[in-house]
Amino acid sequence: MLARETGLATRVEEIDIAVSPVALNEPLARENPLVKIPALVTDSGETLYDSAVICEYLDTLHAGRKLFPAPGPQRFAALRRQALTDGILDAAVLCRYEVAVRPEALRWKDWVEGQKRKILGGLDALEAEVTTWGDDFDIGQIGAACVCGYLDFRFADWNWRAGRPRLAAWFERTAQRPSVKETAPPS
Amino acid sequence: MLARETGLATRVEEIDIAVSPVALNEPLARENPLVKIPALVTDSGETLYDSAVICEYLDTLHAGRKLFPAPGPQRFAALRRQALTDGILDAAVLCRYEVAVRPEALRWKDWVEGQKRKILGGLDALEAEVTTWGDDFDIGQIGAACVCGYLDFRFADWNWRAGRPRLAAWFERTAQRPSVKETAPPS
Repeated sequence: MLARETGLATRVEEIDIAVSPVALNEPLARENPLVKIPALVTDSGETLYDSAVICEYLDTLHAGRKLFPAPGPQRFAALRRQALTDGILDAAVLCRYEVAVRPEALRWKDWVEGQKRKILGGLDALEAEVTTWGDDFDIGQIGAACVCGYLDFRFADWNWRAGRPRLAAWFERTAQRPSVKETAPPS
Repeated sequence: MLARETGLATRVEEIDIAVSPVALNEPLARENPLVKIPALVTDSGETLYDSAVICEYLDTLHAGRKLFPAPGPQRFAALRRQALTDGILDAAVLCRYEVAVRPEALRWKDWVEGQKRKILGGLDALEAEVTTWGDDFDIGQIGAACVCGYLDFRFADWNWRAGRPRLAAWFERTAQRPSVKETAPPS
């Protein structure tokens, strides 16, 4: 999304890749020892990760509107929001691994409930603050769009929109941005 | 560590707190919906998280040597190293939960092995680059010190020093810094 918002998409080659918590992806492990995506190989041959670091780097490569605000209250609000949405996604991926990858006999209900509590608490925090966002679309809102899209993709049955009308309305509007549309997970 | 390195320690009130992936810490949940530590309540009453965001914020509050380098290659090397060490710690905490919190009958060997592979791969990456660090001690090295200290605390039997003599020597030296000594986990 950030590459598209900043006009850098044509300068970034995107590679389809599959990762698993239990099967090593060796080509990816050579670039990122954490074996996670995204990872970005820069023109000078160094590899950057994770998503937040890649985005901040890409944001230095263009002359347009910055998606990482300059140091000050606005920057730390955006970074905090980015960390919130990143944490929601981490918890959602842990849920997904628990209910879809771990052998059924080894699943632990309390674990899923604990992670789900973080996700729902995080969504409630987004619902509470979304009316202050206006038309802002910085690294924090990018994270929020990723959260909404991922939950629709993997946990549609949770019906995250229930009780969160403002966040739902924001995402309905935001999902129309080309950067969000073009990077949406398959429906 | 960053508060101590930058002379801010006396301006930060530290609160002991316990978290669990399956039991909600309600006072913490009110500050951080992800229910993770650290969280920092600023003088203006906002709460910041996670660690990387708190550290970058604190780094703006002092006039001394910055632990977040200014934008440029040095900054992105430091942020990438911070993300690497943060990812190693995430994997180590997941291992800890699997072997110490999850009921024994529900543990999955492949999961621990997958997370351990990320940790050991990450340590190998640190071993490969540690000789380029010299006396640098920025946010990347803070992360590396946290990794070494946490592994000694929780997984001493893994003997992470074996085959990583340069990282071991670096941590032996680094563990003498007051900021590292004063924040070390109990031995």
